Amino acid sequence: MSDTRTNAGVDNFSVTRKMFTWDVPGERVITLLTAGNLATTQALISLLDERSKIVEERNPTILELPTMFQVARLIGSTLKEVIQDSWAEGPEASSKFKASVILGGQIKGGKPTLFLIYPEGNFIEITEDSPFFQIGEAKYGKPILVRAYDPEMSFEDTIKLLLVSFDSTIKANLSVGLPLDLQVYVGDSFEVDNKPRIEADDAYYQAVSSGWGDALRNALTQLPSYKE
Amino acid sequence: MSDTRTNAGVDNFSVTRKMFTWDVPGERVITLLTAGNLATTQALISLLDERSKIVEERNPTILELPTMFQVARLIGSTLKEVIQDSWAEGPEASSKFKASVILGGQIKGGKPTLFLIYPEGNFIEITEDSPFFQIGEAKYGKPILVRAYDPEMSFEDTIKLLLVSFDSTIKANLSVGLPLDLQVYVGDSFEVDNKPRIEADDAYYQAVSSGWGDALRNALTQLPSYKE
Repeated sequence: MSDTRTNAGVDNFSVTRKMFTWDVPGERVITLLTAGNLATTQALISLLDERSKIVEERNPTILELPTMFQVARLIGSTLKEVIQDSWAEGPEASSKFKASVILGGQIKGGKPTLFLIYPEGNFIEITEDSPFFQIGEAKYGKPILVRAYDPEMSFEDTIKLLLVSFDSTIKANLSVGLPLDLQVYVGDSFEVDNKPRIEADDAYYQAVSSGWGDALRNALTQLPSYKE
Repeated sequence: MSDTRTNAGVDNFSVTRKMFTWDVPGERVITLLTAGNLATTQALISLLDERSKIVEERNPTILELPTMFQVARLIGSTLKEVIQDSWAEGPEASSKFKASVILGGQIKGGKPTLFLIYPEGNFIEITEDSPFFQIGEAKYGKPILVRAYDPEMSFEDTIKLLLVSFDSTIKANLSVGLPLDLQVYVGDSFEVDNKPRIEADDAYYQAVSSGWGDALRNALTQLPSYKE
């Protein structure tokens, strides 16, 4: 799930997609979620996209590499390349142009997996011990994931939890905003199932958002009272 | 409420008090909560403390100024002075030596109030529209305050909420840790009522911390389920 708000100051914000998918139906699905400087992430996506279309390029593209690990390496090095281009403006500019990426997907012969790719170009893969990744304005939404996520959760409850985590951030910070993009990948399907956009007037989002305040207050009453 | 963890890297952390109180019984109670660079906040506290003891100093001290607003101005200018001393090391060092402060208290003739004082020395006062202040690692604990705080809350429920907010942060970030210091000021009492320290083995803290995960999962089940 990704939000769509981008801003260059509170007087200059707009809606932009931060989730991008490439697929070879029956063979691979690759999804990127981006956070950080918009010029950097757009350049990254454009480079990956262009290179996947130019068949004459010598290097294999994200549509040809045989494993998700190699795709992560290619995206990491491309991200680093884009950020280092900004070094012409000096190291301070370079730190402003930082971005990070979550890569998810599956290539035939491998399992579905997720990588978190850092601006330095290196990356980590998801494990059972750290079962989720967040990028961008991640702190507000983390406590509910830490406390309520359970690997045995149903698919429907996982979406609900994601929505509550995003909504906690939206209520606390102006730099994250609706609509939200959601992508669900069914393991071993090698196709993009559905990719709904959750708008501000979405009935389910509104029910979750307005119900969560009450549910939290009820949760508090379940805890024992403080006594001096 | 304040935590007590201070660190200079994950291999160098310790316990230090971040809550400081001065009082003139029957006349004023002044409490500071500090966040940011420890050398800066210790210098601030020491300067305020020394100057309140040296009667020959020409300038009035926090124990003599007639209003909380003037106390906030004095603390703001002292904080700015401490941080600017680090400019000798260059502007980069100065930004590392930043700190911010919450000032709370009451002086006879005025109401109890709170100020949030920035490293630049300026400050804002609490209002009904923004009824709480946070400093330091504030993001993790904000969503629960935004959603569950209610000005009609009982005193006991407010402490419970504070504890849940701190615990959400402690579970998500290593830079915040137990024990927690709590101070309760009874309006118009002009004395410090009690100042308990909540240790990791505190029975009430443990009940809240272990109960909150279950309470959150119950809260999630109260929300409608996601349907594709």
